[in-house]
Amino acid sequence: MIKVGIIGSTGYAGAELVRLLLQHPQAQIVWYGSKSYVDQKYANIYRNMFDLLDEKCMNDDMEALSKKADVIFTATPQGLCASMVNEKILTHSRIIDLSADFRLKSVDVYEKWYQRRHESPKYLREAVYGLCEINRSKIASARIVANPGCYTTASILALYPLVARRLIDLNMIIIDAKSGASGAGRGLKVGNLFCEVNENIKPYGVTTHRHTPEIEEQLSYAAGMKYHAGEGVRINFTPHLVPMNRGILATCYATLNRWANAKMIQDAYKEFYQKELFIRLLGKDTFPETRWVEGSNFVDIGFTVDERTGLVIVASALDNLVKGAAGQAVQNMNILFGLEETMGLSLVPVFP
Amino acid sequence: MIKVGIIGSTGYAGAELVRLLLQHPQAQIVWYGSKSYVDQKYANIYRNMFDLLDEKCMNDDMEALSKKADVIFTATPQGLCASMVNEKILTHSRIIDLSADFRLKSVDVYEKWYQRRHESPKYLREAVYGLCEINRSKIASARIVANPGCYTTASILALYPLVARRLIDLNMIIIDAKSGASGAGRGLKVGNLFCEVNENIKPYGVTTHRHTPEIEEQLSYAAGMKYHAGEGVRINFTPHLVPMNRGILATCYATLNRWANAKMIQDAYKEFYQKELFIRLLGKDTFPETRWVEGSNFVDIGFTVDERTGLVIVASALDNLVKGAAGQAVQNMNILFGLEETMGLSLVPVFP
Amino acid sequence: MIKVGIIGSTGYAGAELVRLLLQHPQAQIVWYGSKSYVDQKYANIYRNMFDLLDEKCMNDDMEALSKKADVIFTATPQGLCASMVNEKILTHSRIIDLSADFRLKSVDVYEKWYQRRHESPKYLREAVYGLCEINRSKIASARIVANPGCYTTASILALYPLVARRLIDLNMIIIDAKSGASGAGRGLKVGNLFCEVNENIKPYGVTTHRHTPEIEEQLSYAAGMKYHAGEGVRINFTPHLVPMNRGILATCYATLNRWANAKMIQDAYKEFYQKELFIRLLGKDTFPETRWVEGSNFVDIGFTVDERTGLVIVASALDNLVKGAAGQAVQNMNILFGLEETMGLSLVPVFP
Amino acid sequence: MIKVGIIGSTGYAGAELVRLLLQHPQAQIVWYGSKSYVDQKYANIYRNMFDLLDEKCMNDDMEALSKKADVIFTATPQGLCASMVNEKILTHSRIIDLSADFRLKSVDVYEKWYQRRHESPKYLREAVYGLCEINRSKIASARIVANPGCYTTASILALYPLVARRLIDLNMIIIDAKSGASGAGRGLKVGNLFCEVNENIKPYGVTTHRHTPEIEEQLSYAAGMKYHAGEGVRINFTPHLVPMNRGILATCYATLNRWANAKMIQDAYKEFYQKELFIRLLGKDTFPETRWVEGSNFVDIGFTVDERTGLVIVASALDNLVKGAAGQAVQNMNILFGLEETMGLSLVPVFP
Repeated sequence: MIKVGIIGSTGYAGAELVRLLLQHPQAQIVWYGSKSYVDQKYANIYRNMFDLLDEKCMNDDMEALSKKADVIFTATPQGLCASMVNEKILTHSRIIDLSADFRLKSVDVYEKWYQRRHESPKYLREAVYGLCEINRSKIASARIVANPGCYTTASILALYPLVARRLIDLNMIIIDAKSGASGAGRGLKVGNLFCEVNENIKPYGVTTHRHTPEIEEQLSYAAGMKYHAGEGVRINFTPHLVPMNRGILATCYATLNRWANAKMIQDAYKEFYQKELFIRLLGKDTFPETRWVEGSNFVDIGFTVDERTGLVIVASALDNLVKGAAGQAVQNMNILFGLEETMGLSLVPVFP
Repeated sequence: MIKVGIIGSTGYAGAELVRLLLQHPQAQIVWYGSKSYVDQKYANIYRNMFDLLDEKCMNDDMEALSKKADVIFTATPQGLCASMVNEKILTHSRIIDLSADFRLKSVDVYEKWYQRRHESPKYLREAVYGLCEINRSKIASARIVANPGCYTTASILALYPLVARRLIDLNMIIIDAKSGASGAGRGLKVGNLFCEVNENIKPYGVTTHRHTPEIEEQLSYAAGMKYHAGEGVRINFTPHLVPMNRGILATCYATLNRWANAKMIQDAYKEFYQKELFIRLLGKDTFPETRWVEGSNFVDIGFTVDERTGLVIVASALDNLVKGAAGQAVQNMNILFGLEETMGLSLVPVFP
Repeated sequence: MIKVGIIGSTGYAGAELVRLLLQHPQAQIVWYGSKSYVDQKYANIYRNMFDLLDEKCMNDDMEALSKKADVIFTATPQGLCASMVNEKILTHSRIIDLSADFRLKSVDVYEKWYQRRHESPKYLREAVYGLCEINRSKIASARIVANPGCYTTASILALYPLVARRLIDLNMIIIDAKSGASGAGRGLKVGNLFCEVNENIKPYGVTTHRHTPEIEEQLSYAAGMKYHAGEGVRINFTPHLVPMNRGILATCYATLNRWANAKMIQDAYKEFYQKELFIRLLGKDTFPETRWVEGSNFVDIGFTVDERTGLVIVASALDNLVKGAAGQAVQNMNILFGLEETMGLSLVPVFP
Repeated sequence: MIKVGIIGSTGYAGAELVRLLLQHPQAQIVWYGSKSYVDQKYANIYRNMFDLLDEKCMNDDMEALSKKADVIFTATPQGLCASMVNEKILTHSRIIDLSADFRLKSVDVYEKWYQRRHESPKYLREAVYGLCEINRSKIASARIVANPGCYTTASILALYPLVARRLIDLNMIIIDAKSGASGAGRGLKVGNLFCEVNENIKPYGVTTHRHTPEIEEQLSYAAGMKYHAGEGVRINFTPHLVPMNRGILATCYATLNRWANAKMIQDAYKEFYQKELFIRLLGKDTFPETRWVEGSNFVDIGFTVDERTGLVIVASALDNLVKGAAGQAVQNMNILFGLEETMGLSLVPVFP
């Protein structure tokens, strides 16, 4: 039985970790960390857990926690994990960080996009980017896994084969992404209120969203390129807020290279993903919808080629709290501990 | 492995049966019956099942089906099950009917409220009302289980202990119920369109809703009374349509009997439900919300006593597609076949 | 041109006042009061007003404001209006208070239900309860109008004729009410977040909601009764939160008196409301829905008699921000200043 | 008083025409045409109109109608208007066609994208494309006004100044559009049901949506180019369905020409739209949201330049039933009859 501690267990991603781990046959949660609800019963905060668990929330003391847990999930705001991690902790526990602290390899890029100092740059090199389908083998032996962002998982998985096989122009990929409201977390902001989100769609963070460099960096690696300022794959990333609880749809636009065609795209997807149990290839001309993956760890991918304009349009859909956060984190845990990668994650999507 | 056939597998309740049974360790679906989609791949109709099942829809020939299946679920419009069932079928298979055909013991009451002739009155007597928590032992040996309605499950379970212990006035119980839109099914009616349901709440079927006699009959039995015209427990049932996919909330109002009090209510709930794994007693002054049970087989119940008016207010919440339909049907199957009652149903509610 | 000041113009009710008054031919807003946004441009806070108004928010200094305005609307939390009002202010301006400070005639009842001291009890007697259809003539000469609550407007108007004509049992009326999320205001609470309200229905404030005594008091007057503890009409009021922006539906249950019948109910409604331009009588067996009144000042009322149980079921629907708050406030302003009562309020409901 | 007939008054666009015209001081509806509801009271179909109008639905006999009406609105499926219009009708009435029959100048393009024969090609030349802000002077003297599509109004107005001033590359503009569900109309399709639209976002009509050539044609004219196969501005248009009733957001991506910059974009918008009463320029770095225009005839436009990639990102928002359909149609009527262009359309957006 893997002993699990969660720091930030009372945010939406943390609560989803709890939901998944309660149904995981080889995991046991030993620490429900929280900043705001210490000493309160977890099931009073998330009443879906009523009768299912009796524990109280603990503080976010990562050192104390590391003595009890084989693995620590940090579902916390940017900077917290980086400010806490140290060798002592890493001796006891592996860390799966759901924040962005260890996703970017360059301190400069991190500090520019996140507008904060990085407090543990020394761990950046060894941390492994936890996009399971791509980095599986490296993840297995990592001490720190940087769990990817929700938008980035959707975007990178949609584009990876096309970039790796150089089927599209790497100088300009446009990703128009749409997310449900749980992506914004449980924070108290006017913009998160029901009446502000409901019956509305809006772009936000245009040209400045922090998932931009994360996507560019990983796609650059896919293309066999380095990623610094001025080099590597170039994208524009524009997210939108949609009035629904869960789900991300990433609609990606790229120019098909002259030598490429729809068949080659189809083949590339098959080559990379045919054996992947959490990626469902809808094929040409069938597009994903968020409702078909809700509650599950699936990523659905479909594409077409616009013969009139020479564009490839790829869309991917996932549940931002599962494959976009907690599900992928559990998948990483399974890899870290040598379990079946799908353990606890064979969830049939819930519809309607 | 129990072989399962579903007639009406392409409605919402049928699709939920598929979702639950795919995750059930002892069940295997051998027949995906459908009226409208014969020969089409099931996963093309419900794309959440993409890659998860490859079968095509079959017709609704119950006789042919009965030769292949140990149990048949009928998730069909009123009348269909009653028009098909016969001794030959019952020799091979047990039937769990999700329609109302076998819920009411009296043909007259059925024909009055449903405005249609009953085509198999001879099976009414032997059919067992499949409210698991109440009729568990009778269900075990039934050939036909009449799976309760969604509103009725919520209403009866909320009131059963109070009625059985005669803590409330049985001459007038008011049930103001609220349901998500999946309760209306996948039928093509203007009233089911997104723009008609969204941003709206409305009462419907006031004084005429067909779940009324079903609730009255079962509560009458709870009170040890007969149920015919003029006798038995008397309720008013008023349902409302709420702009959400899933969930039923039943807010029940009854007059506390003079000799009764909150403590006795609390005790009655404990007496009846303490050991029930799918009923969660929130206790006095804590009220259920549909979001806390979504996707699960739980019924949450809370109550209070209004000292000013002498009313007891009880509210119950469940997921209309799970405990209100497919989940309870699977629970009935588990009972029929001697399995753990919770098998395949230990689902943690999904929030948000 | 009536000069209007609004204290609390940046809450939802305040913003609706702005929307309505901008379209009112005889009103001019001279003061956009706000606690949180002083000196910020109003159209930056409510971007629907972009290009339509250029003013900045002012503070909530009611004395300064009273020198500029003929009428002051206070769309503020409980207690604020009572803490500010004084003779000097009332010399210059009339006050239409959208909070509950002057709705209840008894200080004791106020302090019990609102759990706060009343700071201006001396004005309680003269303040007029601003339910236009009932108190029209008294309102015309009032200095302080207590604009009714949203739930109370829906509930009282639904029941008034039945109570006044004694067609129903006054000892127990049950009001099961449902409201959209804007009724909870723009305050930052977890319970108001999109993901908490969406896909959910819940009861709240059961037996303790503050609109209870307000409804009882006014219905007691309708019946020609006094209202103190123990006397007068008795109701149970149970509100529910519905995932929609606007709208209130009040479903009311009462026992028909033995001498009464549906025809008498119909007649009573006609007698009281036939000439009312904002009350639409749907008649027997047709029930209101919130979508049909959205954005307008209408109250729709329908009813039926449940012959089986002897209950009268009445339902009313209104837009909580219009007839339930800002619209009724403007209607009160029209009455105060001798204008056509419908001026600025002839809004066709917006659907879908 | 302008006498108005509506063919297709019982669809959502038709119902919005009714809402707007009821509040228009110079218009009177004399014919509520309908295919499905002949002889039924209009207010029974759209109960928001209860007490506001007493008329019954008529059939869709355009000739009979033309004798009574100065102007006919056709809010009907593709092909109907083209199949009915003739000289006799045009002698009596002007036609504002909300379908696509007269929007494209080329029969070939129409027949290719709409997959149907055009039945009145002879009127294509004289019909005027009714995008008021662009074609105002031509509209004034038209007999047939082709009211633009909802997506096209949003897209063309967003891009017009940039195309006309050649600030962006005309070989490839990507429009990622998002629409509320009322855009799909009141038709009975599974895809329009509440449970299918709610909690979901999906792309549809990718590379094949019929608004594509309409946008290309008009933008080609803006650029002073012809539009046939192979010539003119080239776009990719990808629409998405969003779970909300109303609203369109068009997020447009184009490559900034080398000689252009943000200042020139700003200036171009001002040059073209500064005096337009229904276009609100949010300026650089402020993006529109559909909630801020709901219920109104406004189009809000914002933009930014992504310095990293050289992209211009422009977004526009409008209410698809108002500026995207009925509102623009009324605006066209105002122009046709020499009225103030804003008459009946000075609607403050409704929020929340």
